[in-house]
Amino acid sequence: MLDVSVSGLGKAGLPLAAVIAESGLKVVGIDVSQPTVDGVNAGKCHLQGEPGLPALVAKHAGKNLVATVDGVAAVKESKAHLIIVPLLIDDDKKPDFSILEAAFSTVGKGLKKGDLVVLETTVPVGSTRRLSEILKKESGLRQDEFHLAHSPERLMTGFSVSRFKEFAKIVGGADEASTKAAKGLYEKFCAKVVAVRDCETAEFVKIAEGVYRDVNIALANELFLAAQRLGIDFWEARAAANNQVTNILEAGNGVGGHCIPVYPWFLINEMPMPLAKTAREVNDGMAGYFAGEVRRKTAPGGKVVVAGLTYREGVDETAYTRAKPLVDLLKKSFDVRGADRLLSKEEIEREFGVPAVEGNDFSQFDCAVLLQKDAAFAALLRKAKSFVDARNSPGALQ
Amino acid sequence: MLDVSVSGLGKAGLPLAAVIAESGLKVVGIDVSQPTVDGVNAGKCHLQGEPGLPALVAKHAGKNLVATVDGVAAVKESKAHLIIVPLLIDDDKKPDFSILEAAFSTVGKGLKKGDLVVLETTVPVGSTRRLSEILKKESGLRQDEFHLAHSPERLMTGFSVSRFKEFAKIVGGADEASTKAAKGLYEKFCAKVVAVRDCETAEFVKIAEGVYRDVNIALANELFLAAQRLGIDFWEARAAANNQVTNILEAGNGVGGHCIPVYPWFLINEMPMPLAKTAREVNDGMAGYFAGEVRRKTAPGGKVVVAGLTYREGVDETAYTRAKPLVDLLKKSFDVRGADRLLSKEEIEREFGVPAVEGNDFSQFDCAVLLQKDAAFAALLRKAKSFVDARNSPGALQ
Repeated sequence: MLDVSVSGLGKAGLPLAAVIAESGLKVVGIDVSQPTVDGVNAGKCHLQGEPGLPALVAKHAGKNLVATVDGVAAVKESKAHLIIVPLLIDDDKKPDFSILEAAFSTVGKGLKKGDLVVLETTVPVGSTRRLSEILKKESGLRQDEFHLAHSPERLMTGFSVSRFKEFAKIVGGADEASTKAAKGLYEKFCAKVVAVRDCETAEFVKIAEGVYRDVNIALANELFLAAQRLGIDFWEARAAANNQVTNILEAGNGVGGHCIPVYPWFLINEMPMPLAKTAREVNDGMAGYFAGEVRRKTAPGGKVVVAGLTYREGVDETAYTRAKPLVDLLKKSFDVRGADRLLSKEEIEREFGVPAVEGNDFSQFDCAVLLQKDAAFAALLRKAKSFVDARNSPGALQ
Repeated sequence: MLDVSVSGLGKAGLPLAAVIAESGLKVVGIDVSQPTVDGVNAGKCHLQGEPGLPALVAKHAGKNLVATVDGVAAVKESKAHLIIVPLLIDDDKKPDFSILEAAFSTVGKGLKKGDLVVLETTVPVGSTRRLSEILKKESGLRQDEFHLAHSPERLMTGFSVSRFKEFAKIVGGADEASTKAAKGLYEKFCAKVVAVRDCETAEFVKIAEGVYRDVNIALANELFLAAQRLGIDFWEARAAANNQVTNILEAGNGVGGHCIPVYPWFLINEMPMPLAKTAREVNDGMAGYFAGEVRRKTAPGGKVVVAGLTYREGVDETAYTRAKPLVDLLKKSFDVRGADRLLSKEEIEREFGVPAVEGNDFSQFDCAVLLQKDAAFAALLRKAKSFVDARNSPGALQ
């Protein structure tokens, strides 16, 4: 008998499975991708840029950590089941539960009396209990015959292993026994576990964190725009303003990634959230501001390069990147190229529909826009005839 | 010859004058109120609840610290002039500069070549330089014949003396020589002085701090309202959510006082600030939410007490207190009384237009609303037939 199954071996699930294996528990990872499963079983880490993760996967593969595409069998032979598969939102900002529902269906088919099921995927409040209907239907068990909890993942790309030590893990169960069971499990591999009263509170905590970040990034962006209008250097003012009770974040071209642009919609969709909604609009509106800056400096038809295309500096991902709407806006008026330190020529062309710049000579461009904090890249891009710097203090004012 | 004149001996000016006197400089305080001036000269501190201030006033009165109503004479016999008189906003949220203009006129009449003038009052960006026109007109001096700077006060009621040690003092001049002169003066009595490039940046820094606080209080309030709708305890969720990168503030009945509800308008009036404007609306809307909570629990015509009427717990002031609009809303449907630990019966009746509760027996009330964080007061108010607690975790859910 194994201890834990982890459904989903992606950017969130693989670090979770590896950290559990490191604690001495026996883990089976479940994924729909045969190459991912084969890789993990061979001790190979398919994620880049996660310090500590390749070593954990190599150390435990075939021992504490095995992987399989046969989810039902894996669930049948383990006692606790952590579900950590993606929930995306569609163009109308509505969550698409199909991947989650499939994972719950698989777990339900293997579920046994006394097992524990924990959802780690960030979801709208009430989802854990609602999705549990699938578990009951597939297993034939009553809710009080197994444990159910929510424990939101607190990953940040690049820190996925260390966060289990640095951040408290929140757990909330469908009932008291479930909270206790989940807390007992997580205490085996997390530095600190905080139990909240129910799974709905745990779900809400994670969304609230996302709204906090989104609103504060929007606040930084709105103050940046005000400073620009007033001829004030935002970055200088920010450094002077921040103190024991003030923490103005950094301004830029909005906010991308799987998390922050997504989670606020789980509340905005359901109830009046004027501040959170306005924050989304402010952040999404920054692409329009930077497009305007390029238009102000560049004649129509000019050659423009947009640099720093991934959703955050140092992260090799383009999920919800705000470089995409900026490129789309600029394409209407300019001959646009893309440049990024982490993306290949092919990735840039496929994801952004513009040719990639080859080499580091940007002097051929009428305007260069840099969307990431990268002073060395900024120095290269300044060779263009004009330069718009979204993130590098004090380049914003020119 | 004296070193410094301080125009305005109110809640901001008197601590400033006293701290300067303590540094060994000779200060003359200017105020339009003869009783205030006589009190300071007699060594009496007219402000309550400011630790350290009475001792400083008593120690330096008649020596390093003198006061006068004759502003022009005081300016003539001193070399640096700090202006720290109120700027209020009217019902249309427009700043009323009349007190500031009078203070600049007085300083202008006594101004001499080589003097330094520093505005400490929080003002819209550009105000310091614009008000300097009054100095030039009254003195006949050119701008380059005297120094001009802005250095925003960073007071918080109750911490007015200690803040000079705890927080960096920002200074920005009309030109480089002015910045240098102002920095030199403030370094004599502030623990840390940060020079920014000009007075406009210094003005912006202070407004940005106010917008930061206002938006983050609105964020807490919006998450509180969302939690209420979802049946989640906001305070429990907040405690679980706050971590190294999340700092959700406390929810409540909006935000009062001279500062935070006022300063955002200095930007909102001038340019698109959708997030800051929405934050004002969310915070001001909380009175409507709490009135609704009372209506939900209380039959029309019932006896309601609103408790905790000053703008913040522990502060004996009613400036822009959000208790006032709540009382006004409740008066429409209920027999309303007021209660406060710091205000007299007469103050409550005058400021809020409702009778004050005598004594501590709240069992006669159909509903009690507490607007401040005060667990002991909450225990008394819970004797009412129903209770609405705006600030004391975990009382919000009942």
